[in-house]
Amino acid sequence: MNGPLVAILMGSESDAPKLEPAFETLREYGVPFEARALSAHRSPEMVAEYVKSAPARGTKVFVCAAGLAAHLAGAVAANTHLPVIGIPIRAGGLEGLDALLSTVQMPPGVPVAAVAIDGAKNAALLAIQMLALSDERLAELLRDKKRAMAEAMAAKPPIA
Amino acid sequence: MNGPLVAILMGSESDAPKLEPAFETLREYGVPFEARALSAHRSPEMVAEYVKSAPARGTKVFVCAAGLAAHLAGAVAANTHLPVIGIPIRAGGLEGLDALLSTVQMPPGVPVAAVAIDGAKNAALLAIQMLALSDERLAELLRDKKRAMAEAMAAKPPIA
Amino acid sequence: MNGPLVAILMGSESDAPKLEPAFETLREYGVPFEARALSAHRSPEMVAEYVKSAPARGTKVFVCAAGLAAHLAGAVAANTHLPVIGIPIRAGGLEGLDALLSTVQMPPGVPVAAVAIDGAKNAALLAIQMLALSDERLAELLRDKKRAMAEAMAAKPPIA
Amino acid sequence: MNGPLVAILMGSESDAPKLEPAFETLREYGVPFEARALSAHRSPEMVAEYVKSAPARGTKVFVCAAGLAAHLAGAVAANTHLPVIGIPIRAGGLEGLDALLSTVQMPPGVPVAAVAIDGAKNAALLAIQMLALSDERLAELLRDKKRAMAEAMAAKPPIA
Amino acid sequence: MNGPLVAILMGSESDAPKLEPAFETLREYGVPFEARALSAHRSPEMVAEYVKSAPARGTKVFVCAAGLAAHLAGAVAANTHLPVIGIPIRAGGLEGLDALLSTVQMPPGVPVAAVAIDGAKNAALLAIQMLALSDERLAELLRDKKRAMAEAMAAKPPIA
Amino acid sequence: MNGPLVAILMGSESDAPKLEPAFETLREYGVPFEARALSAHRSPEMVAEYVKSAPARGTKVFVCAAGLAAHLAGAVAANTHLPVIGIPIRAGGLEGLDALLSTVQMPPGVPVAAVAIDGAKNAALLAIQMLALSDERLAELLRDKKRAMAEAMAAKPPIA
Amino acid sequence: MNGPLVAILMGSESDAPKLEPAFETLREYGVPFEARALSAHRSPEMVAEYVKSAPARGTKVFVCAAGLAAHLAGAVAANTHLPVIGIPIRAGGLEGLDALLSTVQMPPGVPVAAVAIDGAKNAALLAIQMLALSDERLAELLRDKKRAMAEAMAAKPPIA
Amino acid sequence: MNGPLVAILMGSESDAPKLEPAFETLREYGVPFEARALSAHRSPEMVAEYVKSAPARGTKVFVCAAGLAAHLAGAVAANTHLPVIGIPIRAGGLEGLDALLSTVQMPPGVPVAAVAIDGAKNAALLAIQMLALSDERLAELLRDKKRAMAEAMAAKPPIA
Repeated sequence: MNGPLVAILMGSESDAPKLEPAFETLREYGVPFEARALSAHRSPEMVAEYVKSAPARGTKVFVCAAGLAAHLAGAVAANTHLPVIGIPIRAGGLEGLDALLSTVQMPPGVPVAAVAIDGAKNAALLAIQMLALSDERLAELLRDKKRAMAEAMAAKPPIA
Repeated sequence: MNGPLVAILMGSESDAPKLEPAFETLREYGVPFEARALSAHRSPEMVAEYVKSAPARGTKVFVCAAGLAAHLAGAVAANTHLPVIGIPIRAGGLEGLDALLSTVQMPPGVPVAAVAIDGAKNAALLAIQMLALSDERLAELLRDKKRAMAEAMAAKPPIA
Repeated sequence: MNGPLVAILMGSESDAPKLEPAFETLREYGVPFEARALSAHRSPEMVAEYVKSAPARGTKVFVCAAGLAAHLAGAVAANTHLPVIGIPIRAGGLEGLDALLSTVQMPPGVPVAAVAIDGAKNAALLAIQMLALSDERLAELLRDKKRAMAEAMAAKPPIA
Repeated sequence: MNGPLVAILMGSESDAPKLEPAFETLREYGVPFEARALSAHRSPEMVAEYVKSAPARGTKVFVCAAGLAAHLAGAVAANTHLPVIGIPIRAGGLEGLDALLSTVQMPPGVPVAAVAIDGAKNAALLAIQMLALSDERLAELLRDKKRAMAEAMAAKPPIA
Repeated sequence: MNGPLVAILMGSESDAPKLEPAFETLREYGVPFEARALSAHRSPEMVAEYVKSAPARGTKVFVCAAGLAAHLAGAVAANTHLPVIGIPIRAGGLEGLDALLSTVQMPPGVPVAAVAIDGAKNAALLAIQMLALSDERLAELLRDKKRAMAEAMAAKPPIA
Repeated sequence: MNGPLVAILMGSESDAPKLEPAFETLREYGVPFEARALSAHRSPEMVAEYVKSAPARGTKVFVCAAGLAAHLAGAVAANTHLPVIGIPIRAGGLEGLDALLSTVQMPPGVPVAAVAIDGAKNAALLAIQMLALSDERLAELLRDKKRAMAEAMAAKPPIA
Repeated sequence: MNGPLVAILMGSESDAPKLEPAFETLREYGVPFEARALSAHRSPEMVAEYVKSAPARGTKVFVCAAGLAAHLAGAVAANTHLPVIGIPIRAGGLEGLDALLSTVQMPPGVPVAAVAIDGAKNAALLAIQMLALSDERLAELLRDKKRAMAEAMAAKPPIA
Repeated sequence: MNGPLVAILMGSESDAPKLEPAFETLREYGVPFEARALSAHRSPEMVAEYVKSAPARGTKVFVCAAGLAAHLAGAVAANTHLPVIGIPIRAGGLEGLDALLSTVQMPPGVPVAAVAIDGAKNAALLAIQMLALSDERLAELLRDKKRAMAEAMAAKPPIA
C-alpha cells in the first residue's frame, strides 16, 4: 500500500496557494500525500465519506485548512480516530482570529491539533513528526534538518 | 401533521438551562417544538440523520446552541435548506466570543442566522417570526406582544 | 400584490457594491426585492416610516447592512415583527468587529438574524429560506442548488 | 423653566444601580435631572417622542446608558441636535466591549460622546462641564472640586 | 474676545490630514478654532501651559487627537474643567483599538468625551453642539443641517 | 523499555489540577506517562536536558501546559523532533487568550500542536492518536470509545 | 544619600494590595523604596513635581501602576530621563487589556518598560536588574536567587 | 573592555529593517552594540550560549525582537540576570497582538521589559536609560535630547 499517507483537505480551492509550503515540505521528506478541496458546509457527506474511506487508501494523518467559521478540521475529527491537524486560514475582516478559534476550541473528546494562522509548513512537519514515531527514516531526516536549521542560523554573520 | 415545528438542538445537555427562555417563548406562542442534545463532533452521523428526517416530522426551523468551537449550527445548515438559527453559548475562557465567531462567520452558500451570546429567547422569537410569515395567528400574536412590550415600558414611572 | 418581497436597506450608498452578491442571489431565485440607502442615525423617521409601510407593499423580510456602530438592523427590528437579517459591514480600524457586535448582541425581545461580516450572499439565501417555508418553488430551488453545490465540489479533481 | 437640565435614559431598569454615581454627582452640583428606562429596541417611538419633547421641558443634555448592542445613545442622537453622552454598560460574555463599540463607533454626522464602560460618574461630570460653558456657578464648582481632588491626593501619606 | 472657541490638539503633525474633516466642519459653522501639534509625552509642560492659558484666549472646548497609547485627551482633561473631546487615531498594528481604550477608559473624576476612531467630523460637531447650548445661531444651524441630512437621504433614488 | 510514553510538563505545580483529565485519559487507555513541573523561564536548562534525555527513557510525545506568555511547548519543541502538544492554561486577566496565542502562533520550522484553552483531555487523546498510528490496541480502543460516545449521545431521551 | 532608590507610584490607593509583591521583593533585596498614590489625571502637577524632585532624593527608577486608561507611567516618563516601569492593573470589564495597551503602546521618544498585567513582582525585579548594572551586591543576589529558583524547581518530585 | 554594551537579537533576519531605528538611536548616543539573528525556536542552544557568554564581552542589556509566538525575549531572560527588553514585531494576521502578549505576559520571577509593537526606537532609548544610571555622559545626553524634543515641538507653528 503506497497511497497518500497524509490527506490535505481545504475548504476552498482558493486556499491552495497558502498550502504550497505544506506540499513542498511533504515532498522534501518523501511523504506521499493527496490534496483536495472539500467543504464541511458545502459537501458534508463527501467529507464524511472521504474521511471514512481514507484509511483503506493508506492515509494516517489529516491536515485541514479553512478560514472564517473554520469547521473542516472539526468535521473530519468527528469522523475518524486518526490525528487531525487544523490550519486556520487568514481571510476576511477578522484576519484569521475567527478561523483560529473555530479550529482550536474543540470540545473534550474530539481533538484537533491546531497550528498557527496560515501555518501550512508546520502542519506538514507535525504530520511528519507523527509518522516518524514509527518510521526511523523520517525521524532521522527530522533530526538532520533540525540540526541543519540551527547550524544555518549559527553560520550567519552579525547584522550590525 | 403536528410534530415539532421547531427543533432545538444543543451541543451538550449541560446547555439545557440556558435554553429555558427559548422553551418558554415557544410555549407562550403555542409553537410545538422538540429539544435534543446532539453533537456535531461527538455524534456527526446522528446530526445528519436527525436533520434529514426532521422535515418529515413537520420541522420547519432549526435552533442550534453550542459553545467553544461551535459547529453545530453550521453542521445542521450543511444538511438542510431550512433556516438554521445559531445561539453561541458562553463557556470557557473566551466567554462566548469563540462560539460567536464559529457560528456567525459562515462561508457563502450556507447561511446561519446568529443571535447574541446566550440569546435563547431571541432565537425562539426569530423562529416564530419565520413561521409567522405564513401563519396569521402567530403574526397577530407577535404584533400584540410587541405593542404590549412598548406599553409596559411607557407605563413605568421615572427612576429619578 | 407583487411588490418587493425582500427589502434591502443599507446605512450608506457606499455599501452598495458589497451588497451585489445579495442582489444577484435574489435575482437568481426570482425573488423581487428593493434596495435603498437609509440611515438609522441620519434619517431615523424615514427608517420607521419605511419599515411600517413596507408590509403593505408586500415586503416580508428585511435585510439591513451597516458598518461601525451598526444600528440599522436593530432600528428596523424595533419597528416590525417581520424577520430582520443584519449584515455587519467591514469598515474602519476595527474591520467589522464593531459592526458584528452592534448587529448580533441584541437584547431579549427584539431579534436580529446576523450573518458574517460582509456576508451579503448568505443574507439573501437566509431570506429566501424564510420565504421558502411557504413557497414550494423556492424550496425546490434551494434543494436543487444545494445539491448542485455539493456535486460541483465532488467533481473537482484533486489539487495535489 | 426649571425642568430637568439633564435627561438620563437607560435601556433597562436593571441598569439603574450602575447609574447611581451619575445621580449623586448631579445632585452634588445641584443640577436638576430626570432618569427613565427607555429602550431603543423595545419602545422606539417613545424614545423619539421623549427626545423631541425634552427641550421644551428644559433638557439640554442627554445621558444614555445601555449594554450589549447598545443603540440607545445613537437612537437619541439621531433625534436631537443636543449633546448626547453614551455610557456603555458591562453585561454578558463580552463584558461591555460590545456596548463600548456600539456606542462610540458612530458614523460621521451624528456624534455621541462616549465615556468608559460603566462610567456613570464621568458622564454626569461631562454633562455638567457642558452646562458650565454658560453657567458660571457650575464652572466655579467644577474648578473647586478639581482643586479639592488634587489636594486630597496630595494630603495622603505615603503607602510604603 | 474672538479667539479660538475650539482648540484642536494633536499628538503629532502627521495626524493633521485626519483632522481635516474637523477643520472643515468648524469653518462650515463659522466657529473660530486653532489647531496645534502638542504631545502629552514629548512636551508635557507645554500641554499644561497651553491648556491653562487657553480660557483667557476664549477657548471653551478642547478636541484632542492621538494614536497608540493616546494620553493627550486625558492629559488635557487633567488640567481643565472645560469639556475635552478625544479622537482615537488609527495607527500601528492595533489599528486604533489601543488609542480608543486609552482615550475612553478614563477613571472617575476626569471625563473625556470619546468619539469613533478617526472620528474628526463628529468631534467637531460635538464641540459645536456644546457651544450651541448657549448660542442660538449655532443651534439653528445644527437643526437645519440635521434636517437637510435627512432630506438628502430621503431624496435618493432606490439603489435596486 | 516501558518508561513513560507520554511526558506531561507544566509550567507550574499549580496547574496540576487542570491536567487531571489528561492523567485520567491516559490511565483509561493504559498509556504510561510521567508528569512534572518544569518552567521554560525558571529552569530553562532543566527543560532542555529533560527533553533531550526523554527519548532514551521511552518518551514519544510531549504534552506541555502553561499560562500567560506560555513558552513551555515552544521551548520543548525547540529541543526535539518528537511531536509536542501545547495546552494553553486559563489564568490572569486575559483568561487564556495570551497563552493560546503564545502556544499556537509558532514560526515555520518548529511546530506545536495546540489544543483548546484548558483542553487537557484532548491533549491526552491527541497523544494517544499519535501513538495509535503504530499501536493497533490503542487504535482499536480509540475506535471503540468513539463509537460508544456517539451511542451514548443517541441513547439520551429528548430534553423537551 | 540613602533615600528611596525606587519610587513606586500608583493611580489609586486601592491598587496597593496588588503592589505588595513589589514591596516584598524590594525588601528582600534590601533596596530602599517609597510608594505613593499619585494620579496622572487627578493630580497632574503633583506627578510632575514629584518626578522632577525625585532624583535629588536619590530615586533612580520609577515603577508606575495604573488601571483602565493607564496614563501614569507615560506621564512620569514624559517628565524624566530615568527608566520608568509600567504595571497595567486588572480592573473593570476589559480586565487589564485597556491598561496594558495604554501602558505599552508609547510613541517613539518616550519609552516605558511594560510588565505583565498585575506583574508587580517582575516590575520590582526589573528595577533591581537595572540598579544591579552598577551594584555588584545586587547582581550577585540576582544570580543567586535565579540559581535557587532553578534548583527549587529541579528538586520537586514528579507530579504523576 | 569595549565590546557591545547592548546586544540586539532578532528572531529572523527579515526583522532587521524594523530594528533600524534602534541601531540609529544607539549610534546617535555613541553606545556600542551588536545585532544578530538568533531564534529561540530554531537555535535554542545558541541563544543560551550567546546570552551566557555576552557579559564577558561587555554586554549589559539585551534587546530582543520577535513576532508571532514571540519567545525570544523570554528565552533570553531565562538565561540571564541582566535586563531584557522585548520588542513585539508586527507580523501575520494578528498584526503583533500575539507577539505583544507573548512578550509582556511573563510569569513572576523572570521579567521582560516590553515596549510597543515595532517599538525599536524606544527599546534602544530604554537600554540607554538603564546604562545612564551609571554613566553621566549618557544621562546628560538623554536630558539634552529630551529638552530639545520639547523645544522642537514648541517651536512649531500652529497647523490651523
